[in-house]
Amino acid sequence: MQPARSCLAILLAAGEGTRMRSARPKVLHEIGGRSLLGHALTALATAGADRIVVVVGPGREDVADAARRLLPEVTIAVQAERRGTAHAALAAHEALAAGFDDVIVAFADTPLIRPDTFGALRAELARGAGVVALGFEAQDPTGYGRLLLHDGALEAIVEHKDATPEQRAVRFCNAGLMALEGHQALSLLEAIGNDNAQSEYYLPDAVALARGRGLEARAIAAPESEVQGVNDRIQLASAEAEFQRRRRREVMAEGATLIAPETVFFSHDTQIGRDVVIEPHVVFGLGVSVADGAVIHAFSHLEGADVGPQASVGPYARLRPGARLADKAKVGNFVEIKAAEIGAGAKVSHLTYIGDASVGAEANIGAGTITCNYDGFFKYRTTIGAGAFVGSNSSLVAPVTIGAGAIVGSGSVVTEDVAADALALGRGRQIVKDGWAKSFREAALARKAAARKP
Amino acid sequence: MQPARSCLAILLAAGEGTRMRSARPKVLHEIGGRSLLGHALTALATAGADRIVVVVGPGREDVADAARRLLPEVTIAVQAERRGTAHAALAAHEALAAGFDDVIVAFADTPLIRPDTFGALRAELARGAGVVALGFEAQDPTGYGRLLLHDGALEAIVEHKDATPEQRAVRFCNAGLMALEGHQALSLLEAIGNDNAQSEYYLPDAVALARGRGLEARAIAAPESEVQGVNDRIQLASAEAEFQRRRRREVMAEGATLIAPETVFFSHDTQIGRDVVIEPHVVFGLGVSVADGAVIHAFSHLEGADVGPQASVGPYARLRPGARLADKAKVGNFVEIKAAEIGAGAKVSHLTYIGDASVGAEANIGAGTITCNYDGFFKYRTTIGAGAFVGSNSSLVAPVTIGAGAIVGSGSVVTEDVAADALALGRGRQIVKDGWAKSFREAALARKAAARKP
Amino acid sequence: MQPARSCLAILLAAGEGTRMRSARPKVLHEIGGRSLLGHALTALATAGADRIVVVVGPGREDVADAARRLLPEVTIAVQAERRGTAHAALAAHEALAAGFDDVIVAFADTPLIRPDTFGALRAELARGAGVVALGFEAQDPTGYGRLLLHDGALEAIVEHKDATPEQRAVRFCNAGLMALEGHQALSLLEAIGNDNAQSEYYLPDAVALARGRGLEARAIAAPESEVQGVNDRIQLASAEAEFQRRRRREVMAEGATLIAPETVFFSHDTQIGRDVVIEPHVVFGLGVSVADGAVIHAFSHLEGADVGPQASVGPYARLRPGARLADKAKVGNFVEIKAAEIGAGAKVSHLTYIGDASVGAEANIGAGTITCNYDGFFKYRTTIGAGAFVGSNSSLVAPVTIGAGAIVGSGSVVTEDVAADALALGRGRQIVKDGWAKSFREAALARKAAARKP
Repeated sequence: MQPARSCLAILLAAGEGTRMRSARPKVLHEIGGRSLLGHALTALATAGADRIVVVVGPGREDVADAARRLLPEVTIAVQAERRGTAHAALAAHEALAAGFDDVIVAFADTPLIRPDTFGALRAELARGAGVVALGFEAQDPTGYGRLLLHDGALEAIVEHKDATPEQRAVRFCNAGLMALEGHQALSLLEAIGNDNAQSEYYLPDAVALARGRGLEARAIAAPESEVQGVNDRIQLASAEAEFQRRRRREVMAEGATLIAPETVFFSHDTQIGRDVVIEPHVVFGLGVSVADGAVIHAFSHLEGADVGPQASVGPYARLRPGARLADKAKVGNFVEIKAAEIGAGAKVSHLTYIGDASVGAEANIGAGTITCNYDGFFKYRTTIGAGAFVGSNSSLVAPVTIGAGAIVGSGSVVTEDVAADALALGRGRQIVKDGWAKSFREAALARKAAARKP
Repeated sequence: MQPARSCLAILLAAGEGTRMRSARPKVLHEIGGRSLLGHALTALATAGADRIVVVVGPGREDVADAARRLLPEVTIAVQAERRGTAHAALAAHEALAAGFDDVIVAFADTPLIRPDTFGALRAELARGAGVVALGFEAQDPTGYGRLLLHDGALEAIVEHKDATPEQRAVRFCNAGLMALEGHQALSLLEAIGNDNAQSEYYLPDAVALARGRGLEARAIAAPESEVQGVNDRIQLASAEAEFQRRRRREVMAEGATLIAPETVFFSHDTQIGRDVVIEPHVVFGLGVSVADGAVIHAFSHLEGADVGPQASVGPYARLRPGARLADKAKVGNFVEIKAAEIGAGAKVSHLTYIGDASVGAEANIGAGTITCNYDGFFKYRTTIGAGAFVGSNSSLVAPVTIGAGAIVGSGSVVTEDVAADALALGRGRQIVKDGWAKSFREAALARKAAARKP
Repeated sequence: MQPARSCLAILLAAGEGTRMRSARPKVLHEIGGRSLLGHALTALATAGADRIVVVVGPGREDVADAARRLLPEVTIAVQAERRGTAHAALAAHEALAAGFDDVIVAFADTPLIRPDTFGALRAELARGAGVVALGFEAQDPTGYGRLLLHDGALEAIVEHKDATPEQRAVRFCNAGLMALEGHQALSLLEAIGNDNAQSEYYLPDAVALARGRGLEARAIAAPESEVQGVNDRIQLASAEAEFQRRRRREVMAEGATLIAPETVFFSHDTQIGRDVVIEPHVVFGLGVSVADGAVIHAFSHLEGADVGPQASVGPYARLRPGARLADKAKVGNFVEIKAAEIGAGAKVSHLTYIGDASVGAEANIGAGTITCNYDGFFKYRTTIGAGAFVGSNSSLVAPVTIGAGAIVGSGSVVTEDVAADALALGRGRQIVKDGWAKSFREAALARKAAARKP
């Protein structure tokens, strides 16, 4: 059990992110539909941070606003100049002075750190460490600072360029994150100097300083995939891929079948029940829940939708925000559902748009049906009763109600309410002109032949 | 050539599969659209098993029924209690006593063993071995039993926990499957004891027993990917992935182009011709054949469909059971075809549903056409003659026939048969109200403005 | 800087490609929508080749024609018999005799060599080498010729079968390509003999001959992925995969976000702007450009289309050749656009076909709208004015013009022009039969019950 120690987290989000080549600040780019900043904030809050200070660059109100929207109780601090990571952490000077037991310094562009890993850093503080670094076994350590251990203690962090050949053989590298004993943290950070080539204040220097004061330095390890940072779009894609691998494994472990997990994409908040089957090529946007036993067929796209037990979605179904499918409802191919309830056992099988509507239980909506919910200015609702049968290629001009058990004839335009159990038709009468097609064809072919002549 | 030795296969299918977290028995989960049980049964039958006994858990009538549906001549045996693999194999006591030449003991949750591998086990029996184990070079052998070889003979199978450091360095591991000389098999299995921590009867103990009787034990090797077992959904996905890799390589080797094989999913029975091109993101359900020279464009989904030579499917085409496309037929985007023949050179290019229908050669079906084949109770057929032209957005209310060479005007609802070469129209007359849109717009904007006022 | 040396490239394209199992010549198979031949020709031209001779097999007019279409100034030479690579290169005898400074011999079935790599071969010639081989570090060198280096010089190329165990340990292998000093090239190639098991004339023998004449032989290295050849469909897919990896990295490096790069497929000429977001599962055919800030949603398929700044495409949008989307235009789900301009801010959101049309700025096209552009013989245009509102499920029978600001009522068939600001309706009047559905249902259920009786 985590001891009841108070915790301050300082989240550095002041990087400029020029390698992203983007008009958007780096930490507001997204993985799993949530910004990098949001991932880091959530993990820190889950790990029990009592106070979180987000350090932003000057004029970065967009980042500050995003942080406040994600976590209203966040504190914003501004790093006026870019003078190194220790300098950035000191932008939280006031909070550091408040005397928390644990201090975590984390990075908003390192979004995949698990709450448990932050917890493990804190656990080392609770066991008496003065500083705790996070390390990883690097596949290729070139360029990374090495964590040099001895008898379980962290003896030093050596930058790659300063390392001896022997030290370069070490593959245990510095991930950058650090936890500091809270009552020493401010003093340690303030003691860090800038006597180096870049004249910057470097957070890893806290290790040597702490040891100089007789404090113990330690290091814990995380997988390399967890500590990966995001500096360009290729690394953004790599972090997204790792996020998706995690979510897929979680969803499968909980009892869903993913036929081709590598082709299914989740958002951070997707909820999938047990014995759900997800076919290849499915995309889950934000805010989707799928209940037990539902099947999501290939090529489906869901966002802001609830899928009920045993329901069937797709292939090629698009569920947009506000789509609610009850038990055993069926939404088939090339169908779009928006802000609409589809009742238990109801079927919307093909080439249909249902928007701003409710469809009653066991109703059947024919192929090509369109709810005409918009007049260019306002949106209107369509209500279809239980057991109603709407014939194919019908247009339901909202606001309109089709009563329970009513039938709408194929190809009808329905502009007025239809009573329960009534039949509505709204279509032209068929007329036939015998032989017309033959004459037309002959004339057209003659025109074509004429057009080809020089 | 395989000698004409008789063969009994005992297929163990009694595992509970709790790690699947599923209401469905583990061996009835599917890869490539066929259950694990079905894969194992098919491979054993292909390898020449004369009799197959499927050992199921008590009360598992669903597994027994599935086995009988897959292979009517199968024998079902019940393992009343779970007391180890040797105990399970002895559920086939009666068949073992019948005196087959070869006995194979296989596992229904190890579905990717090739018939050739079963054949290789049998070949070792034919060469005089008493027991033959199946091994694999494990990437990470931790936890697996090691196969210890000496001079080509299998000296022992040592469990990981009992292995010396030297033995743990061995990466050749036990896949579990075994072949036994048929006239010794029953006696060997009955001799296996349960003097171990779990008090279970273990099949691998047959090796030591056989050697003790002067019989020769051997081992053959298969790739690790072939011997992988399925115990949870993550392993199910891994087995599916291996199955798909195999099928893709076979399809390419036979002369089809897969632009992005990793995005194309086959069923176990998919048949693909030569010079077929399959674009990225295509899903083949059960029962599909594609003839030479056809093109399956991206985002297509086929099931129970025959695609003729040089036909063109998709992008975004859904072919459902009973779709039959003749030579050079074209089915385009957002089109669903169900239980319908599409004649040679006919085109169904966009946003159309053709169900329970036949479309004649060289007919052209306009965008948005719907065959209205269902009245909520019964299904009816639509027949469209050769060379007919159905204008866009038409509704063909079945049962109905459009004659050869006939034309249906755009937007028509056709409820009565149309003679060959005739023109049919069924739509409202256009009326126009000048300036109406302007007045409506002004009024709507005023309403919007009013709605915004406090 | 490249010195101003003249350059002849000989591109060998005479292989039969039987392992492709294809009616199409191997070098006309495609990756990224361009033939293998096209990739090789483009790379050689980009590397500064002044003359390119394509060597084809006898009767391969299809390959010769394709080469001429790709690069009209190409020279075609025919290798009458298949007698080895040196013999094939000598089919360019006349060009070799013309005395270029640099000669490159390349292979049309090795399509991924970068222009920079050809440039690096030439640079070695400029530095005084007589022959320069291209090598790669092979993951598995079995079967490849080894490049044996000493003090920076290429001492020999040894075939795998002739190599000593020590030489087989070398992983630096021969990619096949070669550059030769131009004034020696013809004489070296003519000196190559066929005293070997196959009685063929082998290009690598030029190395020993050159060294025998006191010329220097060198080798440069390229990644194995770059030198991969295409001999069957599996290798074709592998080359396609490498091509896609390159393009995805380039697109991301230039500032586009690819959420799942491994599911996005580009053509060789796709152009993607900055801050473009591409969701999972998108396919780009030939001739697509996407401007800055546009979003391409999942499951979209684009070909021959221009997407304007900030435009939104998909999910499930199909843009066909001639689709032009202006700023902030929106094309939504299950929509096909062909040969049509969609004006700034216009919306075509659902289940629509717009072909041979122009849609004015800020116009709104309702769900299910179809432009009926084809009468079976000719195609006609539809013109929709700025700010027009086309109600859902309408059929616009071309040629037809909807004026600016006009409204078309839902479900209308529009056959005549609609003036600006007018309302057009073209649909049947709604009629209702009370209780009809109930009676129908009762009768149908009775019929169903009767049908079930024996």
